[in-house]
Parts: sequence; C-alpha cells; structure tokens
Amino acid sequence: MAEPTDHAGLEVLTFGDCMRRLASVPVGRIGIVADGEVVILPVNHFVDGQDLVFRTAFGAKLSSVDGRYPVAFEADSYDPAGEAGWSVVVQGRAEVVEEDAEVARLGQLGLRKWGQGKAERPFWVRIRPFAVTGRQTPR
Amino acid sequence: MAEPTDHAGLEVLTFGDCMRRLASVPVGRIGIVADGEVVILPVNHFVDGQDLVFRTAFGAKLSSVDGRYPVAFEADSYDPAGEAGWSVVVQGRAEVVEEDAEVARLGQLGLRKWGQGKAERPFWVRIRPFAVTGRQTPR
Repeated sequence: MAEPTDHAGLEVLTFGDCMRRLASVPVGRIGIVADGEVVILPVNHFVDGQDLVFRTAFGAKLSSVDGRYPVAFEADSYDPAGEAGWSVVVQGRAEVVEEDAEVARLGQLGLRKWGQGKAERPFWVRIRPFAVTGRQTPR
Repeated sequence: MAEPTDHAGLEVLTFGDCMRRLASVPVGRIGIVADGEVVILPVNHFVDGQDLVFRTAFGAKLSSVDGRYPVAFEADSYDPAGEAGWSVVVQGRAEVVEEDAEVARLGQLGLRKWGQGKAERPFWVRIRPFAVTGRQTPR
C-alpha cells in the first residue's frame, strides 16, 4: 500500500517514525526569535521521552525567549548521491532546565558531545513539542 | 598560527570560507516567522553570487513574509564518528523571484533536485545575506 504523501509528493512520516528519526541523528537545529530576528543554531540534541534536550553555551540568547515564544527544531538526513532523504520539523516551547536533580539526570544520559570543542556548555534546554511532522522522499 | 576561536572554543570561519561551505552542500534550512511561529524548512539551495537561492513549493508561506521580516539560513556538515564538523549561519532578507528572465536564468543553473519527489516547486526564493558567520570544530 502506498504511503500517504503531502502536496509536494513527499511521504508523510508517522509521529513514531518522526521521534525515531529525531533520535537517530546527533545534530539538529533550533530556530528562535531573538531581538526581532530569526536565528538558527545547530545543536547536539537527544530525545528524552517525547522532548528534545540539548546543552548549549547560548543560554543568554535562549533564556531571553524562554517560555515566551514558540521555537522550531529541525533534523534531517540525506544521501546526496541518491537524492533521497527525510526531515522532521518540530514546533514547541523551549525552557532552560534549572532544577538541580534534572540537570544531574540529563548529565548522566551520555549525550554525545559533537562540536563541543573546548567549550563549556552550561545550559540544558528542553523543548516540549506541540507539533511534530516529518517527510521523506518516496522510496 | 592558531585560527581565531569563539567563546565556545570553535574556530571562526572567514566570509569566503563560509560561502564556499554553503556552496559545498546540497541541503540547507531556512528559518522564518509565519503566523507568529518560527518555522524551519529544509531546502535544496545553491549559491548565486553572494546570495542563496532555492526553489520551493512553500511559496504562499514564504511570500507571506516576503521582504517584511529577516530570515535565517543554516547549513552544516559533520562527521558523527569523528565528532567534527562545521556550520554556517546566515541572516538575510528573502524575496520571491518574480522577473521572468531571472526565473529562466535560475532554471538553467542546474540546481540539484534533491528531495523534489514528484513535487512541483514553482517558487524561486532569493536570500540576500546581511550577516554570514561560520564555525568549525578545532582540527
């Protein structure tokens, strides 16, 4: 049976597929509005239940929008040779994790540290999705 | 001589490096504000001079912000095994390309059609950057 497709001919992923795809890649991108401008920042995320969590050095920028505006999150994977791929787009609300016990728990989840360099990234941010959609090229 | 690094310990890319990196990958992500929400959409872009150009089916959504708000654009590449990578973030203004001659010229530039599926993507969008920044993990 053919998978459902959107108006652009891309296959629509189920919610479960979307969450599995989000968990399958180490890097995603958060989109926020800061000082009236849209900003996209790549982050090293993981999936915690149905939330997205990442650690960042950009706490000041993120905390300025904490809870006040919705944020976007995107992850994708593609095969340039095969011209095939998928993407998942999340709408949600971001909050800086401040509770000590929760910070400690997140620190023990073995987050991959891609792109960390020499950085300290003291802020944990949690995105609580309210909409998750995904697409992939037809197989 | 060591490359300059930012506060997170990542090497700062020059403008020229940023543009070359943007041109080296077939997929980027545009961030816009639509109906009060931040939206990130993956797009199949190319570099035209110092602008970013892509074709999209999401003309209605994009045209709703055409010229009225700044947009963001992000591209990156990473090696999960090596935990190394780079990202380039652009701030700019997006406009839908409407002039027939320009649409025809863009159509002849051989844009790769990754992710096109069966879609018609009738809208060409041009992003004129006003800020381009890039980072990479230390080598």
